[in-house]
Amino acid sequence: MSFINVSPDCHFPIQNLPYGVFSTPDNSKKRIGVAIGDQILDLSVVKHLFDGPELLNQQEVFDKDCLNDFMGLGRPAWQEVRETLQRLLSMDEPILRDNAKLRAKAFVPQSQATMHLPAKIGDYTDFYSSKNHAYNVGCMFRGKENALMPNWTYLPVGYHGRASSVVVSGTPIRRPNGQTCPDESQPPVFTTCKLFDFELEMAFFTGPATKLGEPIPIDKTEDYMFGMVLMNDWSARDIQKWEYVPLGPFLAKNLGTTISPWVVTMDALQQFKVPNAEQNPKPFPYLYHEDPFSFDIHLEVDLMYDGLSQPKTICRSNFKHMYWTMKQQLAHHTVTGCNINPGDLMGSGTISGETEDSYGSMLELSWRGTKPLDLGNGITRKFLQDGDEVIMTGYCEGNGYRVGFGTCTGRVIPAPPL
Amino acid sequence: MSFINVSPDCHFPIQNLPYGVFSTPDNSKKRIGVAIGDQILDLSVVKHLFDGPELLNQQEVFDKDCLNDFMGLGRPAWQEVRETLQRLLSMDEPILRDNAKLRAKAFVPQSQATMHLPAKIGDYTDFYSSKNHAYNVGCMFRGKENALMPNWTYLPVGYHGRASSVVVSGTPIRRPNGQTCPDESQPPVFTTCKLFDFELEMAFFTGPATKLGEPIPIDKTEDYMFGMVLMNDWSARDIQKWEYVPLGPFLAKNLGTTISPWVVTMDALQQFKVPNAEQNPKPFPYLYHEDPFSFDIHLEVDLMYDGLSQPKTICRSNFKHMYWTMKQQLAHHTVTGCNINPGDLMGSGTISGETEDSYGSMLELSWRGTKPLDLGNGITRKFLQDGDEVIMTGYCEGNGYRVGFGTCTGRVIPAPPL
Ligand SMILES: [Ca+2]
Ligand SMILES: [Ca+2]
Ligand SMILES: [Mg+2]
Ligand SMILES: [Mg+2]
Ligand code: NI
Repeated sequence: MSFINVSPDCHFPIQNLPYGVFSTPDNSKKRIGVAIGDQILDLSVVKHLFDGPELLNQQEVFDKDCLNDFMGLGRPAWQEVRETLQRLLSMDEPILRDNAKLRAKAFVPQSQATMHLPAKIGDYTDFYSSKNHAYNVGCMFRGKENALMPNWTYLPVGYHGRASSVVVSGTPIRRPNGQTCPDESQPPVFTTCKLFDFELEMAFFTGPATKLGEPIPIDKTEDYMFGMVLMNDWSARDIQKWEYVPLGPFLAKNLGTTISPWVVTMDALQQFKVPNAEQNPKPFPYLYHEDPFSFDIHLEVDLMYDGLSQPKTICRSNFKHMYWTMKQQLAHHTVTGCNINPGDLMGSGTISGETEDSYGSMLELSWRGTKPLDLGNGITRKFLQDGDEVIMTGYCEGNGYRVGFGTCTGRVIPAPPL
Repeated sequence: MSFINVSPDCHFPIQNLPYGVFSTPDNSKKRIGVAIGDQILDLSVVKHLFDGPELLNQQEVFDKDCLNDFMGLGRPAWQEVRETLQRLLSMDEPILRDNAKLRAKAFVPQSQATMHLPAKIGDYTDFYSSKNHAYNVGCMFRGKENALMPNWTYLPVGYHGRASSVVVSGTPIRRPNGQTCPDESQPPVFTTCKLFDFELEMAFFTGPATKLGEPIPIDKTEDYMFGMVLMNDWSARDIQKWEYVPLGPFLAKNLGTTISPWVVTMDALQQFKVPNAEQNPKPFPYLYHEDPFSFDIHLEVDLMYDGLSQPKTICRSNFKHMYWTMKQQLAHHTVTGCNINPGDLMGSGTISGETEDSYGSMLELSWRGTKPLDLGNGITRKFLQDGDEVIMTGYCEGNGYRVGFGTCTGRVIPAPPL
């Protein structure tokens, strides 16, 4: 227990301790903090208290405006910092608890803080690792027989995304204009996107850098995972459909990708591991691992709109629905020699469960627009409308506490005039 | 003319003045330099001489270890620096010419310098803008009738690449291991890449940052282009073929991409503009421009191998063979709202001319391995072998001088043991 009060449904108890980057009205400098209850512990103020062997000469990582340097230190340092934080914040430890002056400087209410991107994202990759999602989309675009491509069960399909347009929760997202081809017997048109969508995803941040040409063996992959966030991979379906052959999605996705501001560490998630999905065929040795590396994370997507009195839940899902694990994603990503850096972001791909209310995109929820969603008050949706706010949230249920991710939100604003 | 001696076939006369980042045996600090003849002018040493209105308060951009900050200043600053450099290096200007002590500090022979990546590449995009290349590859994989996808003539197809694995000329490239599916009626195998290839490309670096949600109008695109380099987009064809459906190339490309170290500015290339390719259908207004923005840049690929007495030229081509211009690429890239940052890299796609000796990859030169290349001395090649060094070079032919790019080289080293 912490001397900071934490309500039972709060996402940020002492068992969590996620990292983020924030600023305040009176101090516009971006700095690194840890969420505890409804407070933020400013690590730039208390960095001198991290005096274990790993951090003693590395305290300056908490003077940076992003988490990259801390992410680059590796697991022994991450674990030492977590232990130090759990001690500093515990009921029994007087250093902070009883030092009113230090506490006044070190704690900031979350309600007063502006959150920023937690890391400078050098590269962003998006996988496609939910079998239900791949199958659903495949059914719609290629029919049931060819729904899953032949490579899908052999490797975690992924592609490079755009790092520059990854933004933090709360950033408005502009509906795009672009080329679409609504009638394939006719030339394409340049128009405002009509099939604007979200994708419910999670993503992990990478840790220490590796060298070009040196794959990460699957049993070492965990050493390169710092922590996780919620992610909304906004998608312009009509633009995507016209552009994506043969080199993959491009403008349909790089208009913006939103992540939640608090990075929940892999150490905080350890106790929520559950058995992996059964994989058939058996993966190649470079992708094979037996230890559980799926995570029981409840996920929810809510939609808010001016005519609604409160957000409407449109999707209830769970991260455990993934087919490929993050270990497999990272081993695959590096097997031909690709190097990683601290702060690379690796998205899961849209997370869809087996039931219709657990699909992670409007495309699937409205089954390509054929089954409009009823939001109540006479409002329905096939895809997103201007003014819609998409609110993603997620948490692990512990024994009397939650290890949560907060929210990942974004409101759709109108496209530029044509 | 410069007081520094420049031979007529040298790539770096006073008309060029490309920027790069270098270090020396006696000073391992990375710093920004300009190539002139066989020398480098160290801008960190002479930054105080840039006293025009644009640079006077920005001289610290030449104290950085990469060009990003300078790239971010924009065209008026770039042009002022170019004018200042042409004056400082001219025969008639005594400031450097007659100051032996300053010259000794400010000039470094290129032969003594180690070149580094010119910029921190935040995002790397690769286009696919050579019609001959797209047609050739299409013919091989889908037959003549379906060679060009329907979208190809409407938009400059492109995809996001991996920024972390872009390396500078001279870096060895390791042949990868990965999944391939040589017999589609059988399961895939995990094996060493057998169809390892280069792609002859050029790429441009972007200038000032833009904001998310704000497309760059086509008539402003030139303000966001800093300069160009040669690029080798190493490609594992067998891995690519198995992985690339439906989200595009991934591991087949992210094993490494090599660029030449000297960034030739758009200002130095102005005088080598030639008419654009005829485009039919007429592009949408957001892609339409009438001013010439193709460039007459002679390109060559040589292959060197231990058994050869000298490199063998295997491709002679020209950058003017591109169908889509760089203006169109940048307008397209940002039309749905994607923001750019200083130091983003945008590749042209493989450059292939119309004749068989102008194809920009082994895939095309050997027509998928059916026409092995004769390198002399009884040596032939379908694809690259371990030990092969690929040497790309390019230059514009002026009146009595060349504006050149130097070389972009890389040697293939053996794959990790399986
Ligand atoms: Ca996605
Ligand atoms: Ca390419
Ligand atoms: Mg996105
Ligand atoms: Mg590459
Ligand atoms: Ni990137």
